[in-house]
Amino acid sequence: MTKATEEKFMALLKEEASYGEAIGLMAWDMRTKAPKKGMDNRSEVLGVLAQKVHEIQTSDEMKSYIDELKGNTQDPVIQKSLQEAEETYNKTAKIPTSEYRAYVTLQSKAESMWGEAKENNDFESFRPYLEKLVEYNRKFADYWGYENHRYDALLNNYEPGMTVEILDQVFPKVRKALTNLLEAIKNAPNQPDPSVLEGHFPKEQQEKFSYEILERMGYDFEAGRLDETVHPFAIGLNHNDVRVTTKYDERDFRTAVFGTIHEGGHALYEQNIDPKLSFTPLATGTSMGIHESQSLFWENFISRSEAFWENHYQLFQSYAPDKFNDISLDEFYRAINEVKPSLIRIEADELTYCLHIMVRYELEKALIGGEIEVKDLPELWNSKMEDYLGVKPSNDSEGVLQDIHWSGGDFGYFPSYALGYMYAAQFENKMREDLDIESIIRQGDFEQIKKWLTNHIHQYGKMKKPLEILNEVTGEGLNADYLINYLTNKYKNIYQY
Amino acid sequence: MTKATEEKFMALLKEEASYGEAIGLMAWDMRTKAPKKGMDNRSEVLGVLAQKVHEIQTSDEMKSYIDELKGNTQDPVIQKSLQEAEETYNKTAKIPTSEYRAYVTLQSKAESMWGEAKENNDFESFRPYLEKLVEYNRKFADYWGYENHRYDALLNNYEPGMTVEILDQVFPKVRKALTNLLEAIKNAPNQPDPSVLEGHFPKEQQEKFSYEILERMGYDFEAGRLDETVHPFAIGLNHNDVRVTTKYDERDFRTAVFGTIHEGGHALYEQNIDPKLSFTPLATGTSMGIHESQSLFWENFISRSEAFWENHYQLFQSYAPDKFNDISLDEFYRAINEVKPSLIRIEADELTYCLHIMVRYELEKALIGGEIEVKDLPELWNSKMEDYLGVKPSNDSEGVLQDIHWSGGDFGYFPSYALGYMYAAQFENKMREDLDIESIIRQGDFEQIKKWLTNHIHQYGKMKKPLEILNEVTGEGLNADYLINYLTNKYKNIYQY
Repeated sequence: MTKATEEKFMALLKEEASYGEAIGLMAWDMRTKAPKKGMDNRSEVLGVLAQKVHEIQTSDEMKSYIDELKGNTQDPVIQKSLQEAEETYNKTAKIPTSEYRAYVTLQSKAESMWGEAKENNDFESFRPYLEKLVEYNRKFADYWGYENHRYDALLNNYEPGMTVEILDQVFPKVRKALTNLLEAIKNAPNQPDPSVLEGHFPKEQQEKFSYEILERMGYDFEAGRLDETVHPFAIGLNHNDVRVTTKYDERDFRTAVFGTIHEGGHALYEQNIDPKLSFTPLATGTSMGIHESQSLFWENFISRSEAFWENHYQLFQSYAPDKFNDISLDEFYRAINEVKPSLIRIEADELTYCLHIMVRYELEKALIGGEIEVKDLPELWNSKMEDYLGVKPSNDSEGVLQDIHWSGGDFGYFPSYALGYMYAAQFENKMREDLDIESIIRQGDFEQIKKWLTNHIHQYGKMKKPLEILNEVTGEGLNADYLINYLTNKYKNIYQY
Repeated sequence: MTKATEEKFMALLKEEASYGEAIGLMAWDMRTKAPKKGMDNRSEVLGVLAQKVHEIQTSDEMKSYIDELKGNTQDPVIQKSLQEAEETYNKTAKIPTSEYRAYVTLQSKAESMWGEAKENNDFESFRPYLEKLVEYNRKFADYWGYENHRYDALLNNYEPGMTVEILDQVFPKVRKALTNLLEAIKNAPNQPDPSVLEGHFPKEQQEKFSYEILERMGYDFEAGRLDETVHPFAIGLNHNDVRVTTKYDERDFRTAVFGTIHEGGHALYEQNIDPKLSFTPLATGTSMGIHESQSLFWENFISRSEAFWENHYQLFQSYAPDKFNDISLDEFYRAINEVKPSLIRIEADELTYCLHIMVRYELEKALIGGEIEVKDLPELWNSKMEDYLGVKPSNDSEGVLQDIHWSGGDFGYFPSYALGYMYAAQFENKMREDLDIESIIRQGDFEQIKKWLTNHIHQYGKMKKPLEILNEVTGEGLNADYLINYLTNKYKNIYQY
């Protein structure tokens, strides 16, 4: 009896995952290849399939399998799949259908209003939408429930197990360390010269280098591909079809080089998930934070390291404009690691990035907690930017309106980025005990690193929760010290303060 | 009451069409971009979605809407959609579910067995599969019913309204005319010299020319795109997303040039279907034959015409290798129109192509009718090829095994190709009354031609049946005289016999 139910449950999950792959392909297509006139039609098709997924997740059929199988199955994949299915069921079932529909409509409207507001630097036109989005998210958090802070319920969507309590212990410490570092760097005697990186770098050459680096990272091109897009992303349709996208800026090669490696890190995660998890909700990265730890590990700990460029600068030069023949490895390495507080998160360097996240975390936590209101955001944003980064937006487009996240109701997402940095540093510290990372990087054969990441992290997909992985791999919980030490050593060496 | 049912009916059709668009995109992706390792997973996803479409088409819900709305709705789009839905429902409902499933499994197995058999030139290994496919198709035809010939029931799947009776009046006449023409040509004094077309033509240049020609045809690149593939096709995901694929052979530009124009003809049809048919089963070409008439009209009547090259040869030369500067327009025009009986259908010229179809038509008609059996096919194939084309396969790979169609159970499909030629000639003859085609082609602005085709054919999608369109546009039924006249005049001029 249970056996038959297990099969029916897995068949239903397969149906859900199949829609998921179709939706994923359509999304990839819309952001890379699809002709623009077909977008309206495509959006409707996406809507139909998303609705189907939602129906399955909240169906009586799903509920009956969960009830029947819970505690009655031995297979660990089915057990974990049940757990995921139940969490999704409960989360969705707690929201009244009429509210859910109204919210979906609001999301898409708000996103397009945000686009206009950003373009016109007009926060007021977006404010009523953002207010409604906040209101819904407060309500949803209350439906879902939480122990200490309402914001925990939202955090949980992106980083299961993470809480305000943990973040409030860690983030202020990071903030303090980073602002101190920033101060030291500002007054340091040995400033890098980023102008050495300027110059026209043809797209075709950047593309070739991107392919070469992805190959070296161990990205499997027979199970993926690289395409161009406006806002780069990686997407796993299934573990054998994980696509990377990148953007080529002919005036600044860093966009493509570090962007490709970043997305390549995400892609390696998805490519190396255990195939036995296919067609279950477990066949993807376990959380936003752990995912980001993989992309940032490759982007920062590997590809912004001195060892990496000792090995790869020559290769880079072979694709780069001739001027780079006259730029020394040291000049190059220091230039790509320049620290410079700026207004825009996605352009931030490795050090100041987390400070951007702190600003957002504090604001959205207070917003969801009801301590502040949407109307207070622009001013608070600007003053926090000044406090933490020493820069102040001259308008809301380069301030509170810069990110798309809130317009889609994605509150609780931002902390994942900072968590990714910390996790990456924690993993790297642990990896150091098993591998001589620098010498591996210098040799340019990343196989051992890829294997380590697969063994410790990738293969599990969602079989383990993020903090479970962190604890099992590093023997401790969230700890910012590793990131702080890493950044301190790195920048001391570069800036020689 | 009816209003509400109409809405529910249209919503169900929209769901079906949405799966259709997702399936279409996945198919396009698999044939152009998808990494090979992801294929297995993708096939399963396709299976899930195809099953969903099948479930909708045969659902009690669908049946109830058909019963309730039939004769009770004023909206012509709903009326025609009902008719389509009913035909599909009946067709599918008449096949017992267990047989349908077994057949689907057989199809996919047979297709892969065919691939191996073709590669190994081993008809015997494929024979048992083909026998089962024939058996199923005979049974299905009996389930579906027919008036005169069992084969009519299968023809109807691809060319509604077409019958053995009509084909048997027309095809022999065509065959006789073409074999006579072929004889005359063989002995004609003025043979073209195809060697003038030889030489290395870089892919990038062929690609640029392909884009340019599609633009000129009026293909809308904002509602489509051009990609490379192994077996070229065009696919309409929706009327604003109709994609063309082509193949570049650097040793023979004709593959890409005429292939792109051919697929472009299909694409123009799909791009110009009335948008009000979107998300219904009517939003596609009305039949295989009419679709083929559009691709062949552009490929043959336009792009293999003297007028076309009078205008476009200079453009062609600007992309082509330098050697073409020394080849006269006349030499070029005659060379691209060389007639040469060959063994392989897809490589056939404009004149002999229909003879390849006759061979297949006669064999599958007899096969479905039970007059011959699968074991008789290789020998019959070879002797008919010799009779009609004067060439004889030296093995089954270049004979009876060459086409994929039968391995997928597609009996009744082949005649559409020959019908496409005849329809195209009939349409062209009619168009001539309204437009000065040669002078339009010479001017190179095809807008009027595109408009004529849209007004008379494209816009209707499946609102009209193929023979309905043929009759309304030309005032008569299938008539091979126009094709025969066109070919006779064309080749008399070229070969001067």
